Amino acid sequence: MNSIGTLLRLTTFGESHGVAMGGVLDGLPAGTRIDMEAVQRMIDRRRTGVDPLTSQRRETDIPEILSGITADGIALGTPIGFIFRNSDARSKDYGDLADHYRPNHADYTYDKKYGIRDYRGGGRASARETVNWVMGGALVAEWLKTSGISVEARLTQAGTAGYADPFRSMREDPEESVFEIEPAIENAMRDEVDAARRDRDSVGGRVSCVIRGVPAGVGNPVFDKLQARLAAAMMSLNAAKGFEYGLGAGSATNRGSDILDFFNEDFSPQPFATNFAGGILGGISTGMSVYFNVWFKPTPTISRPLPMPDKNGTLRDVKVEGRHDPCVAMRAPVIVEALAWLTIGDMLLTSGVGI
Amino acid sequence: MNSIGTLLRLTTFGESHGVAMGGVLDGLPAGTRIDMEAVQRMIDRRRTGVDPLTSQRRETDIPEILSGITADGIALGTPIGFIFRNSDARSKDYGDLADHYRPNHADYTYDKKYGIRDYRGGGRASARETVNWVMGGALVAEWLKTSGISVEARLTQAGTAGYADPFRSMREDPEESVFEIEPAIENAMRDEVDAARRDRDSVGGRVSCVIRGVPAGVGNPVFDKLQARLAAAMMSLNAAKGFEYGLGAGSATNRGSDILDFFNEDFSPQPFATNFAGGILGGISTGMSVYFNVWFKPTPTISRPLPMPDKNGTLRDVKVEGRHDPCVAMRAPVIVEALAWLTIGDMLLTSGVGI
Amino acid sequence: MNSIGTLLRLTTFGESHGVAMGGVLDGLPAGTRIDMEAVQRMIDRRRTGVDPLTSQRRETDIPEILSGITADGIALGTPIGFIFRNSDARSKDYGDLADHYRPNHADYTYDKKYGIRDYRGGGRASARETVNWVMGGALVAEWLKTSGISVEARLTQAGTAGYADPFRSMREDPEESVFEIEPAIENAMRDEVDAARRDRDSVGGRVSCVIRGVPAGVGNPVFDKLQARLAAAMMSLNAAKGFEYGLGAGSATNRGSDILDFFNEDFSPQPFATNFAGGILGGISTGMSVYFNVWFKPTPTISRPLPMPDKNGTLRDVKVEGRHDPCVAMRAPVIVEALAWLTIGDMLLTSGVGI
Amino acid sequence: MNSIGTLLRLTTFGESHGVAMGGVLDGLPAGTRIDMEAVQRMIDRRRTGVDPLTSQRRETDIPEILSGITADGIALGTPIGFIFRNSDARSKDYGDLADHYRPNHADYTYDKKYGIRDYRGGGRASARETVNWVMGGALVAEWLKTSGISVEARLTQAGTAGYADPFRSMREDPEESVFEIEPAIENAMRDEVDAARRDRDSVGGRVSCVIRGVPAGVGNPVFDKLQARLAAAMMSLNAAKGFEYGLGAGSATNRGSDILDFFNEDFSPQPFATNFAGGILGGISTGMSVYFNVWFKPTPTISRPLPMPDKNGTLRDVKVEGRHDPCVAMRAPVIVEALAWLTIGDMLLTSGVGI
Repeated sequence: MNSIGTLLRLTTFGESHGVAMGGVLDGLPAGTRIDMEAVQRMIDRRRTGVDPLTSQRRETDIPEILSGITADGIALGTPIGFIFRNSDARSKDYGDLADHYRPNHADYTYDKKYGIRDYRGGGRASARETVNWVMGGALVAEWLKTSGISVEARLTQAGTAGYADPFRSMREDPEESVFEIEPAIENAMRDEVDAARRDRDSVGGRVSCVIRGVPAGVGNPVFDKLQARLAAAMMSLNAAKGFEYGLGAGSATNRGSDILDFFNEDFSPQPFATNFAGGILGGISTGMSVYFNVWFKPTPTISRPLPMPDKNGTLRDVKVEGRHDPCVAMRAPVIVEALAWLTIGDMLLTSGVGI
Repeated sequence: MNSIGTLLRLTTFGESHGVAMGGVLDGLPAGTRIDMEAVQRMIDRRRTGVDPLTSQRRETDIPEILSGITADGIALGTPIGFIFRNSDARSKDYGDLADHYRPNHADYTYDKKYGIRDYRGGGRASARETVNWVMGGALVAEWLKTSGISVEARLTQAGTAGYADPFRSMREDPEESVFEIEPAIENAMRDEVDAARRDRDSVGGRVSCVIRGVPAGVGNPVFDKLQARLAAAMMSLNAAKGFEYGLGAGSATNRGSDILDFFNEDFSPQPFATNFAGGILGGISTGMSVYFNVWFKPTPTISRPLPMPDKNGTLRDVKVEGRHDPCVAMRAPVIVEALAWLTIGDMLLTSGVGI
Repeated sequence: MNSIGTLLRLTTFGESHGVAMGGVLDGLPAGTRIDMEAVQRMIDRRRTGVDPLTSQRRETDIPEILSGITADGIALGTPIGFIFRNSDARSKDYGDLADHYRPNHADYTYDKKYGIRDYRGGGRASARETVNWVMGGALVAEWLKTSGISVEARLTQAGTAGYADPFRSMREDPEESVFEIEPAIENAMRDEVDAARRDRDSVGGRVSCVIRGVPAGVGNPVFDKLQARLAAAMMSLNAAKGFEYGLGAGSATNRGSDILDFFNEDFSPQPFATNFAGGILGGISTGMSVYFNVWFKPTPTISRPLPMPDKNGTLRDVKVEGRHDPCVAMRAPVIVEALAWLTIGDMLLTSGVGI
Repeated sequence: MNSIGTLLRLTTFGESHGVAMGGVLDGLPAGTRIDMEAVQRMIDRRRTGVDPLTSQRRETDIPEILSGITADGIALGTPIGFIFRNSDARSKDYGDLADHYRPNHADYTYDKKYGIRDYRGGGRASARETVNWVMGGALVAEWLKTSGISVEARLTQAGTAGYADPFRSMREDPEESVFEIEPAIENAMRDEVDAARRDRDSVGGRVSCVIRGVPAGVGNPVFDKLQARLAAAMMSLNAAKGFEYGLGAGSATNRGSDILDFFNEDFSPQPFATNFAGGILGGISTGMSVYFNVWFKPTPTISRPLPMPDKNGTLRDVKVEGRHDPCVAMRAPVIVEALAWLTIGDMLLTSGVGI
């Protein structure tokens, strides 16, 4: 249950303040040339401690490759084992939480399910786990780097600030679509996060992602549709509360006649004139860009004393001292990208679509 | 790829205008007493032709059970095979579509992927497939009917009409929550659909669903979370464009401090005072109600001549004569319920949670 | 748990004396031209009632195709649903067995596991189930009929009569290997079966199978090896008690130096000079013929009164009146072939080996 | 494809002379108390270098636990990551093999499949991989140590020496069965191995295994039968060439009437008077001991110059200098036990059989 993918499968392990995080990527095609510097750059994008607005925990976050890749960076086709040592775990910060449950964290449910939990830093439920996902996604990105497929995710809303329609250009001009970047909006988003931080509070947000260059034919109806697999991957992110692709929830208020993607004559220069559909029809990629949004709740950890129960339900005010992000969505884009790479990579293989 | 579930698995088959739809439900616990009348009632809720606003196609939709259930309705623990004959398939209606692709349908992608397709009535991509899902879900509902678990889904938005916050009571009064039903809003939704039908157009919508009575502990982190499995199931619905649970996309604009679900003293009368989380934390059910929304696009088939390409990309105006729903979301609640039953049933087993 | 295969997956259902046997073959490549007469010929090879030495039950055994194949026999790439009606089920024959367990049958274990069973004709545990497997295998054979891959299985031992080394030619002359057929041995095998039948007894046997033309590279170490998948498939046959490939159990008494398969210079005319390995090294096909044996126990049903317990363990002499094969291995070759086709077909896809 | 199990799943990685071997055991029930000394003892039983007749390679073979177990040895229910550093890899020994294929090794097939291979010590195809399996199996053994289930495997044939019928007592006196141990036979087996070693040759063998205490009801017909899963697990062992359970291949020559396991009156003191069936009927455990044999080929590596081809097929005499076992079966019992533990543990969970 800690695995994602069918033919290209990532299996992960690790508690936040345990010995190490790690994983096994099985099924990466043999012969893939891995540029470890590019992998590291993707991992670094996720790193905490870089931006003053995100958590101040500093891990070196340099993976140790244990198998599956030759000394000169060629994938053997055998499973790639890797680990990240947890070097900077200040477990003492969490002492008060050993026997109390934080609201809206997984403390309570892990204890109900397993009867035991590693309370240090959230244990298995910590966002630290996502370093494994970024590692897996970065390796898949290396495989597909010459395939014409690209993945790009951005924070497009933080609290009440953000882009009204981040994908407008992808629908109106699918061929030349870009994320629009408005400095004023970017600043407004940062201001919201900063204000929340100063208030010892947190805000939610939205990450928007586009996968360009997906060939037509990826996805397997009826229970292995591309959108179903993307949704499952994205909803694996702890703080994710919603997923929508193409026109998404906005579809509800539209008339059908307003959002038909008409075909271009001769399917040229691309099959469809618009891309309201979000690049998927009937669960199968159309050859147009695939785009989707992921919605995030505010970080439930806030730096204020909160009433928390012990195992017996006796409430007591506890203040969480650890370091936390005021807006988890800020660090999420590279994780969303990684999950998108993992999903697309696996589905290329299960769909039998060559690249 | 036409299977859903791990230990309780539904595998389906069937083209809309082929010989029959059907499926195999594997893993339903032996000894389950199946009330076939209750199963039929659930199937009938999905049936077309009942409501003048939904498609006029009439199928008897009575399943033939081929195996796995004794003559007196006891599940054997062996796979349950069932079929629905396609008795009322007016294939001639679709003659014009044999060599043209409808916009925003799966015609183009099926042809790109498979090189061949059954164009009659949408073939495998038709919503007729969902009769199999309802059958599977109804059987799971029979298994769980005395478990205290219940599933209820409703149309809560059609076009621009609908409920602003269908889950308010589930958050404010989780113990006594009900769907609020306002006749004025119900009428407004019907009016939107009727208007679309009269305009030979269609509208989108939203279905809201609550699963009550889920025991704590259901869901398997980190890649088999309850919300990930629900999302994947719901995104299997062809017209579904978005999924959100708990506060959903609305989370983004909240401050963390506003949406914490505080614990009740002594976990009584229930563990949490509110249920913003939607009954899931860390991928595991909390014991509170699980609730979520599914967003639907408007039916892409509208009864007007539309430019459609043949295989070579030559466009021609074609009018689709078949019978279609102006708002697919209207028929979706029972299908959403069925998928919820299938998901919960399987996850109870994989989570090792007794009921 | 009633499914076999990953990308090419057969899911089956049916009790021996229920309404119908049936299955869903998912993943057969679109565009496969199915010669239904060839499929029927394979099904007919399995049929009972043809040979006086095998069971006298006569089913028409003509599948009804419900989906996935066009009227002119082209696979759509969608799941192929099929059923076989159980037309000739003389359930009254089994009346005495409703509340008694036959020795060495699955009666006792099904009741222990499920608390209920369909006792008529063995229910789900009946060899009748294998008609579904032959159907699935025959469809895969159609897909691969022009691939150069062929599968051939033969009865090579019945009781004490049989071939000492049915695969000698495949090792000594791998390129031109054939099953040797000695009329005297064939007659001796038939005589053993006939003698057992006359004695109202049964005998065991061995089926030998060769898969020719498997390209190199099929099989996925370390837990999805070709031999592991073949073994699992063959051990699904109820009466199968042993599986061995290549030199098999005979390997134990050999010195390593005696059974090395030396390479041919320039890998020509084929990579290896001999094929003691059985066409698999490290779990991956070598490009040489794959061959294996399956060992079968005698049919446990014999036409004599036997002491059988009821649910409470009270023994009583019961005579089974049904029709049964004195040597199940006699009917097994076509089933072994079908399982081999299903396994090879799936592993070609999961191994990414084109054909 | 480097994973075994459904709900209790071991995923492994590692090349023989790479950085480390390792794995992830997912699904071990939370709360399991792990006695790491017992785990280490099982690992040590597999260790090379202990017995002068087995390979002289010495690894410390002490696992590093990275996650999933608390400091005081309690399983968290989260995945258990572990690694074994490859400390004593004398890679220079294998220099000659970088561009030549050894007969009956996986060199050729890995190169055909992947286009690249780690030739050092057999890379991924090395028996060193089995240290991961023993680790996984030892953890499962810890879980089940108070369940009444036990697993015992022994070498019962080496070359031509061995026990004629190692399981006689399990059939004749199922309640009190033991492996008979005859010093003369034990010595004869050792003499065969020693003789082969002195001749710079190797011999095959057989390992016999019994699983006692398996409750009735384990196994899922029809494609997830207990014997099918055991066979697949055992055939994952590189040198394994055959699997048989119960009477096995010996069944073939028996009359049905000779090997019926009659029931005991009142199912007492155990359900069956004999256990020819090997503890499984219809794919489901009967509650009697499960026993099976695994047949092994001689180690293909022998310390003599052998003609080996390079990639182009040009043959040259090469002598392999590495350290190797003259009889791989000698080290196999603990590995067979580990695979049996992994299989039984997973099937208890998927079968829903409490222990």
